[in-house]
Amino acid sequence: MIEDKNQNRTDLGSLGEFGLIDHLTKNFTIKQKSTIKGVGDDAAVMDFKKEQVVVTTDMLVEGVHFDLSYAPLKHLGYKAIIVNLSDVYAMNAQATQVTVSIAVSNRFPLEALEELYAGIETAAKIYNIDVVGGDTTSSTTGLIISVTAIGVVDAKKVVYRNGAKPNDLLVVTGDLGAAYMGLQVLEREKEVFKVNPNNQPELDNYTYIIERQLKPEARKDIVKLLHELGVKPTSMIDISDGLSSEIMHLCKHSKVGCDLYENKIPLDPQVISTCEEFKIDSTTVALNGGEDYELLFTISQEDFPKIKGNPNFTVIGFMKEEAAGMHLITRAETSIPLKAQGWNALNN
Amino acid sequence: MIEDKNQNRTDLGSLGEFGLIDHLTKNFTIKQKSTIKGVGDDAAVMDFKKEQVVVTTDMLVEGVHFDLSYAPLKHLGYKAIIVNLSDVYAMNAQATQVTVSIAVSNRFPLEALEELYAGIETAAKIYNIDVVGGDTTSSTTGLIISVTAIGVVDAKKVVYRNGAKPNDLLVVTGDLGAAYMGLQVLEREKEVFKVNPNNQPELDNYTYIIERQLKPEARKDIVKLLHELGVKPTSMIDISDGLSSEIMHLCKHSKVGCDLYENKIPLDPQVISTCEEFKIDSTTVALNGGEDYELLFTISQEDFPKIKGNPNFTVIGFMKEEAAGMHLITRAETSIPLKAQGWNALNN
Repeated sequence: MIEDKNQNRTDLGSLGEFGLIDHLTKNFTIKQKSTIKGVGDDAAVMDFKKEQVVVTTDMLVEGVHFDLSYAPLKHLGYKAIIVNLSDVYAMNAQATQVTVSIAVSNRFPLEALEELYAGIETAAKIYNIDVVGGDTTSSTTGLIISVTAIGVVDAKKVVYRNGAKPNDLLVVTGDLGAAYMGLQVLEREKEVFKVNPNNQPELDNYTYIIERQLKPEARKDIVKLLHELGVKPTSMIDISDGLSSEIMHLCKHSKVGCDLYENKIPLDPQVISTCEEFKIDSTTVALNGGEDYELLFTISQEDFPKIKGNPNFTVIGFMKEEAAGMHLITRAETSIPLKAQGWNALNN
Repeated sequence: MIEDKNQNRTDLGSLGEFGLIDHLTKNFTIKQKSTIKGVGDDAAVMDFKKEQVVVTTDMLVEGVHFDLSYAPLKHLGYKAIIVNLSDVYAMNAQATQVTVSIAVSNRFPLEALEELYAGIETAAKIYNIDVVGGDTTSSTTGLIISVTAIGVVDAKKVVYRNGAKPNDLLVVTGDLGAAYMGLQVLEREKEVFKVNPNNQPELDNYTYIIERQLKPEARKDIVKLLHELGVKPTSMIDISDGLSSEIMHLCKHSKVGCDLYENKIPLDPQVISTCEEFKIDSTTVALNGGEDYELLFTISQEDFPKIKGNPNFTVIGFMKEEAAGMHLITRAETSIPLKAQGWNALNN
């Protein structure tokens, strides 16, 4: 996109000393009552009254977490917010504010950053959060985005990773593995494009999985739904690194074991068909694919009637004593120890 | 430092999937009552009761903000925290927590990150703040550090940039220009070292200015002192980009003008002598050097007796009507319009 010679290109250097963040955020409106002062001072100021505050931070690095040859900047801005909000919702909290810092090389014109911030603004609107601060600086190479998300939660409602008990049910929202398979399709098309740049990609059969990769959503709706259903999970985590490793986090922090049932793992038909096409096992993809941003939680068995039959939830297993370990019960009813083989940013 | 073949080198990749932040922060203690949950869940949880919350974020990029050939990693970790705390204090607030995210290439061994975090831990101890979260990921090239600092302030005490009135006094803490001159000395020694690696640097005459560059402090003490003196500034900002541009920020936000007196600008003798040696005008250095992390604020004239004679404070000018503009009154009593020529990360 930034290779297009016909579009406007404003050098970042020409903007002068200050105010790039101010320029990029000038149309952002303040929606949260708790925001007293947003962008434009040494720090943002917020008033959360009696509620507890949750804070989480994530960094996205070009060449590691995203590839600008197929990730549009607007989607990237959107995704950078979503991955952080997902962590807030995983505390059973409501997201209220974010700060956004970017390091960017001079190869990016102002218009590219405006695209990025258009995605950030869209996410802020849809998820009803305020962008209250940030920093822009130059980088020697690519683009780095660091987001910190802030949220609020009633002290009685906060859900940690460490509250699961033996016999609790393990529940997941939505379906798994789609973002990973979307990435496989995009990587394949990139290779095809390298060989023949005139080749137009045919992506009609992959719309859902590509959207899950490029423009994921965070499950704000689930926090609201759980509240309405009167269900407080005993433990919760969001699925960013793959189901397997997230289950292991819950088990480790809660000091419990787990049986996960392969035949219960929710998969979209497009994931199944694309896995067949790529000759990849769909269970492996769901276990280790990552970037699903669904919520994984445990509930006491007595809460089961409250979620039973709800299309948002799938019971995929149950917790056991710690000594029983963590296992996948396959379709053939064999029991295999769970391993975390999720995507490892530092090994890449 | 990381070229030393004799020291331990643990590949980051060998650490396995998770827990690098956990490993690096495992000895960090929680000191703040407001910290309910620190590192180790999807998000940190805090309870600030009735106080307002301030949040600020800053990013440091290798090759832009620091040069590892003369910035020790421990000092760098310390500085990354300080520059953020400085923004919290500039709101007249107390810093309570930070999150730290780093992107790092595989050329850094674990031991290098441990050095970085030793500096972060030292700053956290000295400034009595908790490290409550973070993210570690790989970068394709250098080291990037993104810190978000959180603080609390009584709603009645928060000080913004926009409260200065005509006739208010302009006050600065400490002295200016030292960090910039420290950088000049370090850059010169680096060039000397390139020509003759056996040449040992002679830095005895520059200890103060080099420390101001490599290991700056944030003025937590000033927030306490102002409180004890019963002084609430009408506006405040920290000096990160040079006195000139910070004055312009206060004037712009407060819609006032300003006369700044050259002969009042506080300079350390080492700054003056090093400026003479480098044939640089010391006023230019104080106005545009940056990285001083002193506080610049305005007070009503009636508060003057409360700060008069206090060695922490220097009155350097006074605010005027907006139409009067912003001027430097030189030693020769000529009036020169102020310009912001501070260091511009995006023009480098």
